[in-house]
Amino acid sequence: MDSLTCTPSDLVPLLSSSANATALASFLCTRFSTISSQLSDATHAIDNTYLLFSAYLVFAMQLGFAMLCAGSVRAKNTMNIMLTNVLDAAAGALSYYLFGFAFAFGAPSNGFIGRHFFGLKAYPSPDGDYSFFLYQWAFAIAAAGITSGSIAERTQFVAYLIYSSFLTGFVYPVVSHWFWSGDGWASPIRRNNLLFGSGAIDFAGSGVVHMVGGIAGLWGALIEGPRIGRFDRAGRSVALRGHSASLVVLGTFLLWFGWYGFNPGSFLTIMKGYGGGGGHYGQWSAVGRTAVTTTLAGCTAALTTLFSKRLLVGHWNVIDVCNGLLGGFAAITSGCSVVEPWAAIICGFVAAWVLIGFNALAAKFKYDDPLEAAQLHGGCGAWGLLFTGLFATKAYVNEVYPGLSGRPYGMFMGGGGKLLGAQIIQILVITGWVTATMGPLFCVLKKMNLLRISREDETAGMDLTRHGGFAYVYHDEEDISMRPTFMMTKIEPNNASPSTDGQRSPSNV
Amino acid sequence: MDSLTCTPSDLVPLLSSSANATALASFLCTRFSTISSQLSDATHAIDNTYLLFSAYLVFAMQLGFAMLCAGSVRAKNTMNIMLTNVLDAAAGALSYYLFGFAFAFGAPSNGFIGRHFFGLKAYPSPDGDYSFFLYQWAFAIAAAGITSGSIAERTQFVAYLIYSSFLTGFVYPVVSHWFWSGDGWASPIRRNNLLFGSGAIDFAGSGVVHMVGGIAGLWGALIEGPRIGRFDRAGRSVALRGHSASLVVLGTFLLWFGWYGFNPGSFLTIMKGYGGGGGHYGQWSAVGRTAVTTTLAGCTAALTTLFSKRLLVGHWNVIDVCNGLLGGFAAITSGCSVVEPWAAIICGFVAAWVLIGFNALAAKFKYDDPLEAAQLHGGCGAWGLLFTGLFATKAYVNEVYPGLSGRPYGMFMGGGGKLLGAQIIQILVITGWVTATMGPLFCVLKKMNLLRISREDETAGMDLTRHGGFAYVYHDEEDISMRPTFMMTKIEPNNASPSTDGQRSPSNV
Amino acid sequence: MDSLTCTPSDLVPLLSSSANATALASFLCTRFSTISSQLSDATHAIDNTYLLFSAYLVFAMQLGFAMLCAGSVRAKNTMNIMLTNVLDAAAGALSYYLFGFAFAFGAPSNGFIGRHFFGLKAYPSPDGDYSFFLYQWAFAIAAAGITSGSIAERTQFVAYLIYSSFLTGFVYPVVSHWFWSGDGWASPIRRNNLLFGSGAIDFAGSGVVHMVGGIAGLWGALIEGPRIGRFDRAGRSVALRGHSASLVVLGTFLLWFGWYGFNPGSFLTIMKGYGGGGGHYGQWSAVGRTAVTTTLAGCTAALTTLFSKRLLVGHWNVIDVCNGLLGGFAAITSGCSVVEPWAAIICGFVAAWVLIGFNALAAKFKYDDPLEAAQLHGGCGAWGLLFTGLFATKAYVNEVYPGLSGRPYGMFMGGGGKLLGAQIIQILVITGWVTATMGPLFCVLKKMNLLRISREDETAGMDLTRHGGFAYVYHDEEDISMRPTFMMTKIEPNNASPSTDGQRSPSNV
Repeated sequence: MDSLTCTPSDLVPLLSSSANATALASFLCTRFSTISSQLSDATHAIDNTYLLFSAYLVFAMQLGFAMLCAGSVRAKNTMNIMLTNVLDAAAGALSYYLFGFAFAFGAPSNGFIGRHFFGLKAYPSPDGDYSFFLYQWAFAIAAAGITSGSIAERTQFVAYLIYSSFLTGFVYPVVSHWFWSGDGWASPIRRNNLLFGSGAIDFAGSGVVHMVGGIAGLWGALIEGPRIGRFDRAGRSVALRGHSASLVVLGTFLLWFGWYGFNPGSFLTIMKGYGGGGGHYGQWSAVGRTAVTTTLAGCTAALTTLFSKRLLVGHWNVIDVCNGLLGGFAAITSGCSVVEPWAAIICGFVAAWVLIGFNALAAKFKYDDPLEAAQLHGGCGAWGLLFTGLFATKAYVNEVYPGLSGRPYGMFMGGGGKLLGAQIIQILVITGWVTATMGPLFCVLKKMNLLRISREDETAGMDLTRHGGFAYVYHDEEDISMRPTFMMTKIEPNNASPSTDGQRSPSNV
Repeated sequence: MDSLTCTPSDLVPLLSSSANATALASFLCTRFSTISSQLSDATHAIDNTYLLFSAYLVFAMQLGFAMLCAGSVRAKNTMNIMLTNVLDAAAGALSYYLFGFAFAFGAPSNGFIGRHFFGLKAYPSPDGDYSFFLYQWAFAIAAAGITSGSIAERTQFVAYLIYSSFLTGFVYPVVSHWFWSGDGWASPIRRNNLLFGSGAIDFAGSGVVHMVGGIAGLWGALIEGPRIGRFDRAGRSVALRGHSASLVVLGTFLLWFGWYGFNPGSFLTIMKGYGGGGGHYGQWSAVGRTAVTTTLAGCTAALTTLFSKRLLVGHWNVIDVCNGLLGGFAAITSGCSVVEPWAAIICGFVAAWVLIGFNALAAKFKYDDPLEAAQLHGGCGAWGLLFTGLFATKAYVNEVYPGLSGRPYGMFMGGGGKLLGAQIIQILVITGWVTATMGPLFCVLKKMNLLRISREDETAGMDLTRHGGFAYVYHDEEDISMRPTFMMTKIEPNNASPSTDGQRSPSNV
Repeated sequence: MDSLTCTPSDLVPLLSSSANATALASFLCTRFSTISSQLSDATHAIDNTYLLFSAYLVFAMQLGFAMLCAGSVRAKNTMNIMLTNVLDAAAGALSYYLFGFAFAFGAPSNGFIGRHFFGLKAYPSPDGDYSFFLYQWAFAIAAAGITSGSIAERTQFVAYLIYSSFLTGFVYPVVSHWFWSGDGWASPIRRNNLLFGSGAIDFAGSGVVHMVGGIAGLWGALIEGPRIGRFDRAGRSVALRGHSASLVVLGTFLLWFGWYGFNPGSFLTIMKGYGGGGGHYGQWSAVGRTAVTTTLAGCTAALTTLFSKRLLVGHWNVIDVCNGLLGGFAAITSGCSVVEPWAAIICGFVAAWVLIGFNALAAKFKYDDPLEAAQLHGGCGAWGLLFTGLFATKAYVNEVYPGLSGRPYGMFMGGGGKLLGAQIIQILVITGWVTATMGPLFCVLKKMNLLRISREDETAGMDLTRHGGFAYVYHDEEDISMRPTFMMTKIEPNNASPSTDGQRSPSNV
């Protein structure tokens, strides 16, 4: 700050005579220039701190996914599903660094796909820094994580490696380019030729992330078919319960925690006053409001699910409540920044019923999705896009997406149907694009016998057959394997041969 | 920053003649105005970033509570207790949004209860933004979480829903209004008529959060009585061990992590220089010091507990160490911002013994609190309030609560007994208020047979009878239920009928 | 911001006559002074916010360690290892507060060890605030955590207390003084007499933290010898599998999460423009790049391990992938801030093979390290130091360690061999220092019979014999102990005495 030093005794001579105008001008300009430079530095420091820590929170969602998935599958497939979650992040980092980020945000583009910044070449630029790359990577790996839930407990590991790279490296980046890049054909921030004069508003990705992951999972799960035993011979649904409710709750809370990076973080910056600046109201308020709408939508969906399921099933079910909560989050993700808190409550209430409805539909059509991922992320994500088209307020839309006069907003708020139209287009386009890319991929994998594991492996569990062993060993291996089938085999001979009764065989144990 | 542009060639003509005074004045004022505006924006951005991420950390404590509670109860009640933790957050969000926040911070008030901002109406205001609401919500749900620990493993779910809403929506907000709102009758930040010329100093809520939750739990647990089997026929204490030490440690560490949002975050802002500003010492230093005092108090309590328990019981017990740690945190929470680091060590040392003492008392009076919540949060919380009255330093009290000359401070630091008096009043008033509100509520619930579950349900566990099943399935349901009673039932017939020895019945397995 | 008020009507008279020069000078200087002061406050607020939240993330690594360690040991030693992790943090807080921090950063020093700030006396100073203390404490406790992994499952608790205090309070602080303090003899930030004109570059501690913890663990594990059963009579390696892969993955992800505080946080500040400031490129970019290099190195190591192990062992092993990931992180920690993202990929690739190689070596020499801690933190940490000497770029080295002309940089980048020389010195010196201090300590402990637990305790598990019980109780104690040996003992008599077949004895169960 030294260059801002200003001592009256030095300044008085300059001011006393207009002959010193040049020196005085230099004096003042140097100071203003320094101030300008430091304010610019402060803005960069604040915004990057905000975005980096938001990115870390979004990354924590990967841990949430891992725990949620682990707890939701049977113990015999725990290592398998956790490995896919670790690899989403790891393989995603390399592919997103090499080309995914370039496809998504390599502007200027042709509107369909980006083409700069491969391997972060010529990056950072004035338009984006490493923090932005890290943030977008954390988003990209979330989509693949969603899909892995749908096809859990029956998919070959090699199929997983293939589809995950394809999704994170190509399918998802293209979608994010369309809706989030300044060049995307349906983006609300492009300079001109906005779709329906509006562009689709998918602030943090109900469509771009959740629907993409959910629709991909839908096709995967459809093409693979249900897990063995998921529907009995009479076609009735048989719950294959996950092995640990504690891991499910742990994962859900971690996802909730991370969602505060996902939704409010999507502003990318926080230091920006609204209305000319200098007041108490600014982007920091919009960020906070986004955290509040996110919270209210998820919580309402959780409560709605709690009481609905109590009426429908008779239990107070924590697993269902967790899924309802996540459905509310997936739904509000699109409109979180542009709706009022009270509207978020509506969003969450409907999201809970959307999830219940899609789950009923899934049971009816014998669709088996161990994590309810297609129903939750696909269904509630689609509802979220519609919700934004209905409830986005004029003021917030113009604050969050400034610089366009007469921008359409939510139909129920008096903003006409154009935004809703754009949202519907987004739903259709995402569904079409993911279907056209992931559907064939899963089919080819199936044709090549690379998709589904064998009947024997599925029954035994993938951990034993492919991943080196069971995930849990609660008692010493020297003493006993806790695998109950094994334990029983050991016990039965004793029962079967009373003549050896007196023989103690601790080694059997 | 463009409006701060200053080029000498433009400025020289303005300075060369006093005739251009008007233009020059405009030139300068525009720049100063822009700078002022941007500095204001920067302050808002920094403070809101700080408060939002602190709020996220406090929210993470809810996950910590869930894991701590889950690990501390028996496996058969895991889903039940985790569901209550999820619902604390979810139901708390709605009730706090609708009225709790208004009761707590809806200034101007009548001193007893706030009455503005219902449903966040007319919010944000110059005095508070959404980040403040989110932060206070995260605090509100913590109190209910504490209480749910005290009454775990024997309380009807519907009773839980009722008391939790009442506590989060009314009892707690009123207390926080008294001690934290600018209008509260015992608040240290009210303009005039401070209690004993001081107001009570409960910086982050040893009383407002921890004692409220703990005293509510005390009455709940007293009125319900101990769990079946907790005391044997001779009246001796029988440990009903929690089912997972790993979850207890996980939860404890998460609470520790979140406490860095709870205590340092309670400054609400960080950009404020002390002593006129511009130096290296400011609110950021006080924030950091608060993190240090918090750490030292908890760690000292953990170590004290470790060695005390080693002497008293003979084990190095990680569960006790975790509880001791949390007791130290609960105690320092009141004075964390106004005491020296060395004093925090005293705080933690005494807190450990307070907890040991109250636990001994509880065993003597056959009080059963599965999480030791009343002893820990109530007992150590009360000690924390006294500690602040004894050790608050003059300098820190005046930095953290500025603008009042001659403010009393810690008695042992030479600040007289007035602050200590206010702290004692706070202990009495919180005890009285929570007793007067929650005591009758629990009694009414008991009268209506809505409080305690049936003997059968308690023995079988609530997860099986009310929540749809056991929380863990480590082995395939097709193969075997891991419920050992069931497994044994299956085995015994083999033993009982030697004539069928040779018969292998894998279906039994 | 009021003091920046500037109204033209007030200013015009001042500007209209040079007679008012004094008043005008005062007017301007007051404003510049206020601006300077507020910019200074903003810088402090931003940098402290950045450092505090980074410290919280690093602290979360302690939770990650606890879960990783817990999952990697057998269930019977879970409470033991988790207790050591809690105590690392707790005892470390007190010892680091009392003297560790003073040894490390109590400048001015004699180059070997610091000697100010004992008990945080005369702290904060213009050179460092409480946030810096908290950050360094979080680093100090990480080193002891690494070591506890190496000697897990066979070490007396009292030995643990002794070595941990010694390591955190003395051995580690001295090393951090040498390489990180402005006075350290090998520090790259000392004013003059830099080692090889360069100083060693260990930005976030591949050597200072990871090698120190790893080498200490190496000696501990060597002196204790392998766990019972780790190598069979023929000398073949027998895997003693950890009891929970879920905890391993949870811990690994938490460490990953925390590493974003560890590496990028090591900049300590974020508000600093490069190249004079005011542009888009500054320390915030370097911070972001550090997060990116960290991510890429870990992810590459994870993928390399996945495919290597698939080829070598035939499994897709999630535990190995987790260890590979952490090896990549440990390696990049030294150079994360001064290498290009593409170089980080090389770093991770080699790190994976370094870990595989050291693990093969360990098996060959019958070295038993339950967490592979010496191989991972020691081996990959050493590789990381070499890597920095090879790949550090000129531009980044001069931005991160400014103010020295002609500073050496990576040999492969054209920077000569001086930096590499300094890195090799660091490896040798750390190895020597830790060997010279920790080796004798472990030997003395062994001589005094304080090091290793008895054969009986090791077989039974430390939790039962020393820590009050088994960590998990999945089924009611009233019904049955889940300890299988006990269960079997109960069953066998039934088999052994067919005469009592008809007798149902549920109490046996």
